[in-house]
Amino acid sequence: MKKLINDPEQVVADALRGIESAHGDRLRVSYEPMMIVRADAPVAGKVGLVSGGGSGHEPLHGGFVGPGMLDAACPGEIFTSPTPDQMYEATKAVDGGAGVVHIVKNYTGDVLNFEMAADLARADGIEVETILTNDDVAVEDSLYTAGRRGVGVTVLVEKIAGAAAAAGKSLHDVAEIGRQVNAHGRSMGMALTPCITPASGQPSFELEDDEVEIGIGIHGEPGRFKEKITPGRVASQIAERLLQPIIEDLPFNSGDRVLALVNGMGGTPLIELYIVYAEVARIAAEHGLTIERNLVGNYITSLEMQGCSITLLKLDDELSHYWDAPVNTPGLRWGA
Amino acid sequence: MKKLINDPEQVVADALRGIESAHGDRLRVSYEPMMIVRADAPVAGKVGLVSGGGSGHEPLHGGFVGPGMLDAACPGEIFTSPTPDQMYEATKAVDGGAGVVHIVKNYTGDVLNFEMAADLARADGIEVETILTNDDVAVEDSLYTAGRRGVGVTVLVEKIAGAAAAAGKSLHDVAEIGRQVNAHGRSMGMALTPCITPASGQPSFELEDDEVEIGIGIHGEPGRFKEKITPGRVASQIAERLLQPIIEDLPFNSGDRVLALVNGMGGTPLIELYIVYAEVARIAAEHGLTIERNLVGNYITSLEMQGCSITLLKLDDELSHYWDAPVNTPGLRWGA
Repeated sequence: MKKLINDPEQVVADALRGIESAHGDRLRVSYEPMMIVRADAPVAGKVGLVSGGGSGHEPLHGGFVGPGMLDAACPGEIFTSPTPDQMYEATKAVDGGAGVVHIVKNYTGDVLNFEMAADLARADGIEVETILTNDDVAVEDSLYTAGRRGVGVTVLVEKIAGAAAAAGKSLHDVAEIGRQVNAHGRSMGMALTPCITPASGQPSFELEDDEVEIGIGIHGEPGRFKEKITPGRVASQIAERLLQPIIEDLPFNSGDRVLALVNGMGGTPLIELYIVYAEVARIAAEHGLTIERNLVGNYITSLEMQGCSITLLKLDDELSHYWDAPVNTPGLRWGA
Repeated sequence: MKKLINDPEQVVADALRGIESAHGDRLRVSYEPMMIVRADAPVAGKVGLVSGGGSGHEPLHGGFVGPGMLDAACPGEIFTSPTPDQMYEATKAVDGGAGVVHIVKNYTGDVLNFEMAADLARADGIEVETILTNDDVAVEDSLYTAGRRGVGVTVLVEKIAGAAAAAGKSLHDVAEIGRQVNAHGRSMGMALTPCITPASGQPSFELEDDEVEIGIGIHGEPGRFKEKITPGRVASQIAERLLQPIIEDLPFNSGDRVLALVNGMGGTPLIELYIVYAEVARIAAEHGLTIERNLVGNYITSLEMQGCSITLLKLDDELSHYWDAPVNTPGLRWGA
């Protein structure tokens, strides 16, 4: 295992020190419990947004803390849920009197711990609503979930619900628009290579030199099937394998306006993601879908895994408006 | 070789189709010759900025085309210089009557071809100035260069000279400020793993499982030395190996204000880059340097190579002002 780390047991805390050094003008970092919080939190009268989950998916979630997106993120250890204590402290830190929304990816540990944190916060008189993301069409249940996994759509929920909160919407309205994004978004991912968790030093799974895994989760958990690649049309084949189930599931219909996210798993270079995006654009056009917004890059990753995921979100004027609104975070920034 | 590509010979053209699909509202893509140009070019009265070089370093250069940065980029094939024809056409496309600056990384092919393009443009009556970047302190000459290689500082030159051009500065002034950035910036890189060029299918070099290469170039060309890693303090050791020669070379002195860029080589996850950044912040503080601006992420890459480079730029009020100015490109965006 070769990684740019020091002590494998201190990876998350060491990265937090880097985030604090780089962004300390805008973010507060806490180590016990581990949290990344907007420097100006709580913002009086604004609904607060908290997310969190295992680390190893950066920039998700800590890279999305800032005006127009999250108020706080709770990083767990690598691929490990944060604790209720972290989520409860983050909830208190961002409550500006208008209530707090928890954005929770559908993994058993995350769901249970956020529920406990919400109960603790409610006992303090803080109103809490939860948005659960479960957009991964690959599998119905998995190693870490009952029901579908929450993946790429989480980034879109954090951006769009964050914009609604910044616009002064109520707790109910912010939660509703976030749920609408989840309801109208679908994702699927694949891997060319496994990743290695620092603590184990071992690859998360095995793949042959000419084989990919379709439907993989963001912790390297198994997908739908392994498949031999077809030299000369790997990107084309993969875009079809991922998009077909996505389009059929919602379903997305001819005439729909969509946002397309082509997301890298962490170890795939940008030039390859643009090749995949060209295929996504081709296939979307064949289905009569109009891609009105797009995002290409590493947004929800699995350490150094090579591969990608694709997310489609059905847009309307309101969602597009909130998508376009200014955002100022380390991982996503425009208009500010 | 497993990559998210189709035909290995068409990687650059296929990625350009993706860039055109994703950013066609803001960028024009040409295929013969290959160019990425601001959609609104030429901007009347503004100095035009053109850069280019071999592909495989994305987002450099094509991802930095847009208001506040480059007017055009010429992508060569992977790790191969673009042709004078590309550079000449790009120069004509962005000349708004105030002249054009070429930003050229110091690689023999790039230098010769940009010189030919400048001569052709001058014969058309277009004034051309050249900024040569050669910030890599690792080696004096290398496989592809006479003199030092141009690496990370190129991103900073494109941003800062781009802001000066956007502010209406003259051809002479834009070129001078770009040269000042190069003169005040130093870089060095390292690799944990090689990369594989699509056309060859072979790793660019060999490294043992417990070995890194210090002083590597962005095409995998040899560095200063190979070294065994020290488990438990890899990031710390590497940050010291890279920063010491950088600091001694300019030299950077106690009390200096600096911009620090921790750049990923393409296959290294963000969580590791932040761990390196924490070490950079520590070492800079030990030397009495104040990091006033920073950038952490993948900006000048080597396909899927794992590793990083560090760049320090000595700042003054003028450079900081242009660094902070709005920029709106796919790869770097703020204030717009």
